Amino acid sequence: VSVWTGGRALPDGESGAAGDRGLLLGDGLFETIHVRDGVALHLDRHLGRLQHSADALGIPFPARLAASVAEALPELLRVEASPARAALRLCLTRGRGRGLVPKETSAPGQWISLSGLDDRPRGEPSPAVSAVVVPSPRVDPTHPLAGHKSLSAGGWVMARRAALAAGADVALLSTVDGDVVEGDSANLFLVVGGSLLTPPLARGVLPGITRTRVLETSAAIERVLAAEDLLGASEAFLTSSLAGVQPLRSIDGRRLLAPGPVAVAVAARLVD
Amino acid sequence: VSVWTGGRALPDGESGAAGDRGLLLGDGLFETIHVRDGVALHLDRHLGRLQHSADALGIPFPARLAASVAEALPELLRVEASPARAALRLCLTRGRGRGLVPKETSAPGQWISLSGLDDRPRGEPSPAVSAVVVPSPRVDPTHPLAGHKSLSAGGWVMARRAALAAGADVALLSTVDGDVVEGDSANLFLVVGGSLLTPPLARGVLPGITRTRVLETSAAIERVLAAEDLLGASEAFLTSSLAGVQPLRSIDGRRLLAPGPVAVAVAARLVD
Repeated sequence: VSVWTGGRALPDGESGAAGDRGLLLGDGLFETIHVRDGVALHLDRHLGRLQHSADALGIPFPARLAASVAEALPELLRVEASPARAALRLCLTRGRGRGLVPKETSAPGQWISLSGLDDRPRGEPSPAVSAVVVPSPRVDPTHPLAGHKSLSAGGWVMARRAALAAGADVALLSTVDGDVVEGDSANLFLVVGGSLLTPPLARGVLPGITRTRVLETSAAIERVLAAEDLLGASEAFLTSSLAGVQPLRSIDGRRLLAPGPVAVAVAARLVD
Repeated sequence: VSVWTGGRALPDGESGAAGDRGLLLGDGLFETIHVRDGVALHLDRHLGRLQHSADALGIPFPARLAASVAEALPELLRVEASPARAALRLCLTRGRGRGLVPKETSAPGQWISLSGLDDRPRGEPSPAVSAVVVPSPRVDPTHPLAGHKSLSAGGWVMARRAALAAGADVALLSTVDGDVVEGDSANLFLVVGGSLLTPPLARGVLPGITRTRVLETSAAIERVLAAEDLLGASEAFLTSSLAGVQPLRSIDGRRLLAPGPVAVAVAARLVD
């Protein structure tokens, strides 16, 4: 693939990310890793999830990826003026080649990037946000990309746009079967009848690193969540690598205690 | 977004496509345009569709895009050693900015690329291919990206991989409601009881340029297609900008006449 950029045509060997299947087809995966004080937190878990998803998509996993991260991170932090917190982004793509499935196998594409973030205290919930359940996109638990952090994330962008248009901060998504499964970029936990609940992975849910850590450090139970569970919840929060525990102060306009005692207790056990 | 590439960290302003939301989130659209003898065929229709989709996704449409194509095409053809046929790829993205919906509006990203193709005769069907109906991914007609040529095309890649694993050339897709809607990168037409049928756009179908031209030049009828219609079809073909009319020689192992008389007649009316 030759690419036109900056007023001239570059042949395939020089066209970089603009000729990569990550850009051309969203044909790849990503990880968003929380960096604090120069350390990529839970890097092994992120690389493990990425490898699992790469196997599922048939993308070769580069043996040297961890070494590349170790090499790239200090340089990227330096270019970003050494923020105390940052988001490290790993993109792993099927590499190069035309057509939906290229005839020749290419080396995978590896794109490592970083953005500085505002600092926030450890061991506390993030500032609360408001959520609405959006009617679409719907999660299809049978979709081959369900549960994977695919670069084909345009549906999540549209979910967030719908939430913002409705006056909320984030979107909650349902499946094609009507159960509620996750936030547009985070996992969902509800406190219902005193129990801490989160949907099971079989419902197409992303196996979030923070979600797993909450399940390991609390009495949370995996259970399919009906739309009515949202109405019966005394607390609700999202979890993600960057925001940690993020309480919902409302769902579809109904106010919730935020942060509630469960969110505070869960966040206190997640100090990195 | 700073990007690590070629052994060094580049700041946001220099990170190019690797820092673009097209790569990071599949947040954009594309067009694949058939180029013959240096001419981008039906360019106005492609740009019209792209503009329509950009409006739906909230991506500003660059006024100068047609001029950029006119400037880029001869240079790209030159770099590819002037093939008689080529595929021109326009990628239009939401540009730059972190998060699902960036706080600040960025200029859209424009990435124009080209690949040479083997020559083929005009006015004839392309060589026939075999198809299987894959169980997933399923098309959701209510999905905000349904009917748009989104860069979040990873699901189509997985559909094609499933078809190849089943020993076929291409995948046919159904909706979450069970009706059959399209190929993994083409529209679907069936001849049933002497009528030429194709699913209506409301079923989440991409408004293909060649599909529209077939509807304009034949007696084709838009009708929801049930799985049983595949069994009753005497002919079936796909349509796309690059392959034109592409007969199916089998669906799920059931042989079909390929090319049948309808495919030959339809292709003859589509001479560019």
